[in-house]
Amino acid sequence: MNKAVSLGQALRRAVHLRGDGVAVIDGTKTFTWKAFSDRVARLAGVFSAMGLSHGGRVVLLSLNSHHSLECFFAAIHAGGAITPLNHRLALGELCDQVADCKPDVIVLGEGFSELRGDLLAAAGGAVPLLHAGDGEAPAGMRSLDGLIEGTDPLPDQGRCGDDLAVLMYTSGTTSAAKGVMLSHANFVANTANTYGELGFGPDIVHLHHGPLFHVAAAARVFSVTHAAGTHVLLPRFVAGEVIAEIERTRVTHATFVPTMLRAMLDDPALASADLSSLRVLSYGSAPMPEPLLREIMTALPGAGFLQSYGMTELSPVVTILNARDHLPENWASGRLRSAGKPVLFAELGVVDAQDRPLPPGEAGEIVARGPNVMLGYWNRPDLTAEALRGGWMHTGDIGYFDDAGYLFVIDRLKDMIISGGENVYSLEVENALSAHPAVSQCAVFGRPHEHWGEAVHAVATLKPGMATTTHELIAHCRAILAHYKCPRTLEIRDQPMPLSGANKISKAALKEELRAREAAGGA
Amino acid sequence: MNKAVSLGQALRRAVHLRGDGVAVIDGTKTFTWKAFSDRVARLAGVFSAMGLSHGGRVVLLSLNSHHSLECFFAAIHAGGAITPLNHRLALGELCDQVADCKPDVIVLGEGFSELRGDLLAAAGGAVPLLHAGDGEAPAGMRSLDGLIEGTDPLPDQGRCGDDLAVLMYTSGTTSAAKGVMLSHANFVANTANTYGELGFGPDIVHLHHGPLFHVAAAARVFSVTHAAGTHVLLPRFVAGEVIAEIERTRVTHATFVPTMLRAMLDDPALASADLSSLRVLSYGSAPMPEPLLREIMTALPGAGFLQSYGMTELSPVVTILNARDHLPENWASGRLRSAGKPVLFAELGVVDAQDRPLPPGEAGEIVARGPNVMLGYWNRPDLTAEALRGGWMHTGDIGYFDDAGYLFVIDRLKDMIISGGENVYSLEVENALSAHPAVSQCAVFGRPHEHWGEAVHAVATLKPGMATTTHELIAHCRAILAHYKCPRTLEIRDQPMPLSGANKISKAALKEELRAREAAGGA
Repeated sequence: MNKAVSLGQALRRAVHLRGDGVAVIDGTKTFTWKAFSDRVARLAGVFSAMGLSHGGRVVLLSLNSHHSLECFFAAIHAGGAITPLNHRLALGELCDQVADCKPDVIVLGEGFSELRGDLLAAAGGAVPLLHAGDGEAPAGMRSLDGLIEGTDPLPDQGRCGDDLAVLMYTSGTTSAAKGVMLSHANFVANTANTYGELGFGPDIVHLHHGPLFHVAAAARVFSVTHAAGTHVLLPRFVAGEVIAEIERTRVTHATFVPTMLRAMLDDPALASADLSSLRVLSYGSAPMPEPLLREIMTALPGAGFLQSYGMTELSPVVTILNARDHLPENWASGRLRSAGKPVLFAELGVVDAQDRPLPPGEAGEIVARGPNVMLGYWNRPDLTAEALRGGWMHTGDIGYFDDAGYLFVIDRLKDMIISGGENVYSLEVENALSAHPAVSQCAVFGRPHEHWGEAVHAVATLKPGMATTTHELIAHCRAILAHYKCPRTLEIRDQPMPLSGANKISKAALKEELRAREAAGGA
Repeated sequence: MNKAVSLGQALRRAVHLRGDGVAVIDGTKTFTWKAFSDRVARLAGVFSAMGLSHGGRVVLLSLNSHHSLECFFAAIHAGGAITPLNHRLALGELCDQVADCKPDVIVLGEGFSELRGDLLAAAGGAVPLLHAGDGEAPAGMRSLDGLIEGTDPLPDQGRCGDDLAVLMYTSGTTSAAKGVMLSHANFVANTANTYGELGFGPDIVHLHHGPLFHVAAAARVFSVTHAAGTHVLLPRFVAGEVIAEIERTRVTHATFVPTMLRAMLDDPALASADLSSLRVLSYGSAPMPEPLLREIMTALPGAGFLQSYGMTELSPVVTILNARDHLPENWASGRLRSAGKPVLFAELGVVDAQDRPLPPGEAGEIVARGPNVMLGYWNRPDLTAEALRGGWMHTGDIGYFDDAGYLFVIDRLKDMIISGGENVYSLEVENALSAHPAVSQCAVFGRPHEHWGEAVHAVATLKPGMATTTHELIAHCRAILAHYKCPRTLEIRDQPMPLSGANKISKAALKEELRAREAAGGA
């Protein structure tokens, strides 16, 4: 036990280092680390009295608030795990996840109490429902604030190491969501892997505007606490509000996706705001286009930029493209399109379909191992064994390393098309199609083909007021790509693209539409 | 296995990040990370062919050299552990340690081959002896370089996590040396705990002039490799050579004890040397006197200073007094005398004799827990259980935390004197005595006393050409200290102080001398 890491230690250390310093800023409310820690211990007492014990789960459905942070630490403190659900999902999906994880307590933030009947039914009934928000609790629910006030602090129940800390559902685009089991040691590893590169320390002020049900934000809940820094919470991303909050609370660190930076640049408030406190902007999920980087670096001359690559199963970061890599003198290297280099304690590889290691320059499936690899999938030993075969987490992403050790991620494995024995990466074709001025969104996937096995098929939507033809778009691709990579068939779609739970274009839905049309005799 | 940390990963990552970059500089020899890694894998093959297997040990007795670093990683790579011995010990002590750890291979650096017969006998014979140095191997030994050239690389044997990596003897001043078992996870934790504070990264150049048999230097062997930085090796500390090597190889990081910095300041070479590459000087074992800090900060204006506190059993660092704490504006706080604050993943406490936690401001034994705590003492489950009771490593040091979370270490527990029910910290009395201009060295300890339980006794040596009396020295103390803390008896000694294996004043020997004199009727 003495050798185990724990997330409780992070909280105790923050109290030790900055007990009277500000831990949390949520609108007009602020809490010192002592006050926050006290609320966590009392809320743990609440959860415990409601039946949460070792290995139990607290489901949280809420926009970001100080209550969310308290639920994270209190569930863990009481010996359990937190399961933050994606509030963008449809009710049926949420109910599936609640039924799957069998919570001991359900916490609903403001605006979500109307779902309580359905979620309670999904949980099998008899699960306490807590209202995390201001004002009276709705009928059938109890007020989290009220209970905290009336409950004694519970001692930390001592969970650590490989004990489950967070059960986080990933929204698969093709299959039911899987619960990823992440441990105390997993999040400690993520802090260790990112701390130095992020320039973390007790003086940081971190803005959480991204949803805490996403691993990128959840991991920062822990690493900012490890740093004994300050958490600033916004319910969600709204460009103008983010700009105002950075200025108001002197935010030093925040995470974005490139489209959010675009929205901030387009907001008139940016020009007059003092954002000089910003030190490190990190981003993920997508490479940074050079023109956007140039623009944001001009707007925020004091900030460094950092890209990370990872996934929920990896807690999440395994590579970082650091601030130096983003400096103008390095743009010519082409490495802005890379995901960077392996973090401190992660080991990465690229393997072929038989799990044989591939040398630099050759593309294959990206695999990773290290202390950040998940415990496994909740109640799915079959999927766990498959994903972790040979001791490596198989990411399902295709990529390669260059000679200098930078990782380039080129596609999802399941989105790769094999046509006439050649690998076609859907992302590459999509990038080519997107470069056409009329194209708004596009998706490329394989369509069964008698002769070639699969043929490249594309679906595109057009920008408002723009017009083009399937012929012109295919010709556009042929000017950029090798012939075998170009769409053989292409469909211009009037309807919006179907979206998955994570708001990505659902290729599975598009494939199914195509299959149904073909079965009905269309094409 | 996929979730385990390993020291082999550090080496593989360094090759990935900086394969063609310089890994090791040892005089005129340099090795890239690829070349170093290749030598390690071949040397692991040598060790393996000689019988080293899982859990085995390689004893190393050598000044610092590239061979030492290779032995560290090769022993681990081959599935074993490295046991670096303290070459300052007497032959009998070395033989005791060899007999205790039962090595599979013994490696002797240049200058140590004459001990081979005795060490071989201590090991029970039939243990291969390797010569780590240039030129022909002495009779009965084989050349490490020659064997590396003629042996194929061995695959990493995959040790990790809680597997033993380093077996390191601590030189107790009162008892036989104990073998401290440190694991892969222990050194990974130390890297994680110190990496950010040290400003480590692939561009660092770290000078090892302190002996690698000391945990402070051994831990840097791993953390500099984790950083994929450059190791620079000097056989030992010689002020002029250290100054020249920093300039020659553009060293960015090095570790000193305050007396070494004094020696460097007194070296005429310092004034003309360009040491502008130095970024972080760390030190430990003793607080930094303000005048010395002022002088060294003036001489090295670009360098930051960092003090760390720890012990072999803690791999070793648990608190850091960081660069900011060393800035002149913070001198008035008195915290230059503190050991700083807990590192990222370590948890510290101060407890009374019944292991009950004490609040800030109250002195007691310092205890620590976390992933950096040793596996235990080699073949001594009794000592291990005692040291790690309740899940905390009991350091044997006395200290307290101030209100801001800084740790002040005030004495070794065993050096504390209890006189008339009052705790007297020998270090405090020694500091008072040392302030007298005539005193060169001193030691303070308890002497059995019928009425008081113990009475404070002091032994002092004088500076050359200085004279004083016992009466004057006691009066000097009374002007500074509370009466009960002042020596009741004091002895001015003509002979040099007796030293322990670690070159510290041996209070045990002084106590024994006193006891023997009293038994013989003297005083």
